[in-house]
Amino acid sequence: LIPVAVLGATGAVGQRFVQRLAKHPWFELTQLIGDATAGSAYGDVPWRLEDPMPESVASLRVEGLQALGEAPVVFSALPSGVAGPVEARLAAAGRRVFTNASDHRMDPAVPIVIPEVNADHLDSIDRSKGFIVANGNCTSVILSLAVAPIHRAFGIERLDVTSLQALSGAGYPGVSSLDIADNVLPHIAHEEEKVESEPNKLLGSWQGGFRSAGIPIRATCTRVGVREGHLESVHLQLARDATLAQVREALESFRGPKDVAALPSAPKRPIHVLDAPDRPQPRLDAGREQGMAVSVGRLRARDRDVRFVVLGSNTVRGAAGASILNAELAKVRGLLD
Amino acid sequence: LIPVAVLGATGAVGQRFVQRLAKHPWFELTQLIGDATAGSAYGDVPWRLEDPMPESVASLRVEGLQALGEAPVVFSALPSGVAGPVEARLAAAGRRVFTNASDHRMDPAVPIVIPEVNADHLDSIDRSKGFIVANGNCTSVILSLAVAPIHRAFGIERLDVTSLQALSGAGYPGVSSLDIADNVLPHIAHEEEKVESEPNKLLGSWQGGFRSAGIPIRATCTRVGVREGHLESVHLQLARDATLAQVREALESFRGPKDVAALPSAPKRPIHVLDAPDRPQPRLDAGREQGMAVSVGRLRARDRDVRFVVLGSNTVRGAAGASILNAELAKVRGLLD
Amino acid sequence: LIPVAVLGATGAVGQRFVQRLAKHPWFELTQLIGDATAGSAYGDVPWRLEDPMPESVASLRVEGLQALGEAPVVFSALPSGVAGPVEARLAAAGRRVFTNASDHRMDPAVPIVIPEVNADHLDSIDRSKGFIVANGNCTSVILSLAVAPIHRAFGIERLDVTSLQALSGAGYPGVSSLDIADNVLPHIAHEEEKVESEPNKLLGSWQGGFRSAGIPIRATCTRVGVREGHLESVHLQLARDATLAQVREALESFRGPKDVAALPSAPKRPIHVLDAPDRPQPRLDAGREQGMAVSVGRLRARDRDVRFVVLGSNTVRGAAGASILNAELAKVRGLLD
Amino acid sequence: LIPVAVLGATGAVGQRFVQRLAKHPWFELTQLIGDATAGSAYGDVPWRLEDPMPESVASLRVEGLQALGEAPVVFSALPSGVAGPVEARLAAAGRRVFTNASDHRMDPAVPIVIPEVNADHLDSIDRSKGFIVANGNCTSVILSLAVAPIHRAFGIERLDVTSLQALSGAGYPGVSSLDIADNVLPHIAHEEEKVESEPNKLLGSWQGGFRSAGIPIRATCTRVGVREGHLESVHLQLARDATLAQVREALESFRGPKDVAALPSAPKRPIHVLDAPDRPQPRLDAGREQGMAVSVGRLRARDRDVRFVVLGSNTVRGAAGASILNAELAKVRGLLD
Repeated sequence: LIPVAVLGATGAVGQRFVQRLAKHPWFELTQLIGDATAGSAYGDVPWRLEDPMPESVASLRVEGLQALGEAPVVFSALPSGVAGPVEARLAAAGRRVFTNASDHRMDPAVPIVIPEVNADHLDSIDRSKGFIVANGNCTSVILSLAVAPIHRAFGIERLDVTSLQALSGAGYPGVSSLDIADNVLPHIAHEEEKVESEPNKLLGSWQGGFRSAGIPIRATCTRVGVREGHLESVHLQLARDATLAQVREALESFRGPKDVAALPSAPKRPIHVLDAPDRPQPRLDAGREQGMAVSVGRLRARDRDVRFVVLGSNTVRGAAGASILNAELAKVRGLLD
Repeated sequence: LIPVAVLGATGAVGQRFVQRLAKHPWFELTQLIGDATAGSAYGDVPWRLEDPMPESVASLRVEGLQALGEAPVVFSALPSGVAGPVEARLAAAGRRVFTNASDHRMDPAVPIVIPEVNADHLDSIDRSKGFIVANGNCTSVILSLAVAPIHRAFGIERLDVTSLQALSGAGYPGVSSLDIADNVLPHIAHEEEKVESEPNKLLGSWQGGFRSAGIPIRATCTRVGVREGHLESVHLQLARDATLAQVREALESFRGPKDVAALPSAPKRPIHVLDAPDRPQPRLDAGREQGMAVSVGRLRARDRDVRFVVLGSNTVRGAAGASILNAELAKVRGLLD
Repeated sequence: LIPVAVLGATGAVGQRFVQRLAKHPWFELTQLIGDATAGSAYGDVPWRLEDPMPESVASLRVEGLQALGEAPVVFSALPSGVAGPVEARLAAAGRRVFTNASDHRMDPAVPIVIPEVNADHLDSIDRSKGFIVANGNCTSVILSLAVAPIHRAFGIERLDVTSLQALSGAGYPGVSSLDIADNVLPHIAHEEEKVESEPNKLLGSWQGGFRSAGIPIRATCTRVGVREGHLESVHLQLARDATLAQVREALESFRGPKDVAALPSAPKRPIHVLDAPDRPQPRLDAGREQGMAVSVGRLRARDRDVRFVVLGSNTVRGAAGASILNAELAKVRGLLD
Repeated sequence: LIPVAVLGATGAVGQRFVQRLAKHPWFELTQLIGDATAGSAYGDVPWRLEDPMPESVASLRVEGLQALGEAPVVFSALPSGVAGPVEARLAAAGRRVFTNASDHRMDPAVPIVIPEVNADHLDSIDRSKGFIVANGNCTSVILSLAVAPIHRAFGIERLDVTSLQALSGAGYPGVSSLDIADNVLPHIAHEEEKVESEPNKLLGSWQGGFRSAGIPIRATCTRVGVREGHLESVHLQLARDATLAQVREALESFRGPKDVAALPSAPKRPIHVLDAPDRPQPRLDAGREQGMAVSVGRLRARDRDVRFVVLGSNTVRGAAGASILNAELAKVRGLLD
């Protein structure tokens, strides 16, 4: 078992990290770092996920960052802004950092990885040293997964996306109930920039440097009063003609590389295509394959005009689960040796 | 005062008609038609709007359709499907029918009218006989209002819209609370077809026949857990270059024809442009100008790529208020003589 | 395996029956009865529970009541009013009917059973014939479970209860989203009568006839915008002095008879006492022990004045799970032979 | 016009103060105090009420407490804890302080006043000096208003209350949306102590000192996902027999003293009795008489056992409106001279 620590272990994403690492077959959760609650037993910190806190972590003590021990692998659920310098320092000191924070995503030396999509971007890592591997922004990951097989098969010339994002995406306490009750918020700070840039890094190629996929992406990001599950309405213009059946087949048959499919956290099928006209729905579909699969529905295609909605668990596939899957990939590709 | 009747007077839209006609300066509400509750006093039918029922209508008796009296002007809040034959029969019998139902909207003899946008489409009416004038689908009206000045000034080559629609748009009882609690529904039956066709009739021209504006519209319509106010994320590609300031100016300065601006139900400004980054919001902005103005926010423009969100009251500007404004326009243009 | 049928199999409670019977160790689900959808495959009827429909039932065909076959045990999720005559006829024909409907609950020949509380009420059944065994109203069951050990230990002289009931208690489609959004409904038709009478039958004794426990119960029942889990604020006046520790101990140590504790659907502990001041909460606690345990929190006691809140899953412990547990008890007590 | 200042002017209750003072016939809003936003124009601070910010206040500058000028009357919307020493200091310096904070409510020198109920408690004030007049806790005020006429007419021997309190009662940002979505919180810190003590001071008498009304009150306070309007389920045991009609009449006919009824903020009828079985509802009834009247519904009486639900606007009648009405009373009784 490889010892791992979680930074920011008591927040919304941090709790997802802890939940999914508590019984991990390869990683052993040895430290929970949380400056605000340092000194408390983890079991005494309010737990906000539906399933009960894993018993094995309740007795762990939350510690301050300065107490970070030997764990060679560090998962970071730190807030963006705070994360940047901390992660840089840890990497410089030889740690392998898998981060959910946005600070380093567009760094030329940091890959954004979705194992099923661009596992080869790990080639950018110099394995002789510490490093940072980022997962994308929650909305970007869910979008990129759904779009990857279409982009590969038919090319994408234009992408318009409007997201309906869940409350858990804002962390805890996050959105005030007074702001969202009987309401929608039509803006999420700094979100659209990420959604318009990250997928192009992800879907692009590594050739000694990262080359953008060059898709013009236009995003509008909104917040709705749903606890978990980002829903995205995606309108595409393809580079080549495709029938509805062909697009559907590309989505359904999409699988990552063989070694990715065998990772402990990998879903059996990264993308599920739903045919019921009123699916996917956040409450019913966000948890598909333990939250690691995305659900595509309302698939429509006409000439080069393709539309669908895609839903994914923002705190799992779009955050903690994404980072853990990246670490699993790093392990099988020899980066944690 | 012109005597008017409301068909379907007890539903969600019907109540809005009654609310806005109760003290109308030109129309006198003389009959409330509602088959399911015929025989009851209107005051005994459950009232579901925030403001109390106008006292003047509480004592009116709900009657069945066969009891429809002399009123020359009829407002129809009948459900689509039911509305079609009833309205056709009434028009054939010489009534002036202003309808919120979709059945006749795409008829070659029926105009869809937004007075500020296409008042001249009333020219299609043969004033010697009964007729039907439709307002657009709620989502279409709000979209068309916001898009009209941009289309006029710069041309629109492509329009992608994702709507986040309110519960009241589904009527009463409409959406089950069990379906929408902590959830979003990614589909509204038959809605997208309307949103992709009606604006083109509305924004097109009347030249002895209706000519489509020919804008390729791609719509995805979703339902969110909000009581009132449809929010729409609109992405446009213009035919000509425009700066952000020019687009903003086109929206802000938009006014209908002079006689429209003077109608009792007309808003002072049909479109309000909001600069706060987190507006418009359904709860805070749907009621602007008694629900008759739409609010545009998050306006972004880059080359020919324009994006914004628009919000409007679906039961007022998108339904009852729209029909009443149409009837007011018909009056000043001599169609009710 | 004993063949069983479910009446009303497609409603909110009916789906819970199907979910919990699909893999039952003693019962085999052989027929799904649902008049409105008779002829459809069960897998084609909309499924509204979070967990996916059990695969084994998807291919079963929904049938009309007249097609009811040989199953000796029938679970009834029929709506009250409809249920009464149907259940009476089935019992008269020799079936063992376990019903969630209220129609027969106060019949002198029908016991209301909570196995942990009044398993001996099954003695009222003449096992030579068909019969009806009822579970209580959802609010009554949850209340009675929590109150039973206190009543036994200290006596209860007065009980005031205000319930905050979940949407699923109204069935599907049930409460309109327009009625409950940003709102509370202070009334549930016919609920308070049940809550004031049923616990007295349940907590009373069987001595050739049912004797009421005689507790003066005063109930106010409200509906809140929560999907699952009835929360009840309970204020008691005891007949004898008790310390907080004594009341807590009575609740914590409460277990049913030995044979009840071994039933497949029985929770390990029927009552969990939570010490966190902000628990129980519907979203976090309704699913405790697969929904079969109730959670008591905010326990306060001062002289003979005891207060607490109790939460339970209304569709499981308060409905389908309750009926199934009753049938399990009937089996081990020889009533299904 | 009497110059007045508002402390804590930018919070949820502070905004209600500003909204209701902006056009007050007797008071002139001259200063807005808010330490966190001192220096901003009030119009630049986020406004969270449905109706737009009054134009007259948008240009006022928010100032720090140390900049408090000459205003002889100060309204305090400070958070409890912070409020205590500040208000004491201001009163000692000769100001007339009308406070919504709880810090001084149980002080022997500070009256809690509901003008319709205990206007004579102002006799406790030494008008030669500065002073503090408190309004009760929101839940207490709404409860006390409804209970006052029953207590006077029939006496109350026992009072059990369960509250379903709105989100705005927790201030802004207050309750996290993640905590309350699809949920109820069964506890509000320090609330029950207030609800069990304040009404007894309010309903008691001033005889050189405050004498408690001596009603044994048992409260359970919960939070529900509603924006505005506290609903309370009240169970009473009377000291004397009363019919339903008598209790109803006591509530309906209740009026304050003559000079109170004429105050600018006083409702025409402090208590409205609703006969519809499903009323009052927060969304439909909290705004009654500009939020200054409470609504009683579901009135049931049997022997000495009386039950009802009462609803009131927690930020208006239970907070800002209550304080302003107290100041109006103080003026007509000569305390502001």
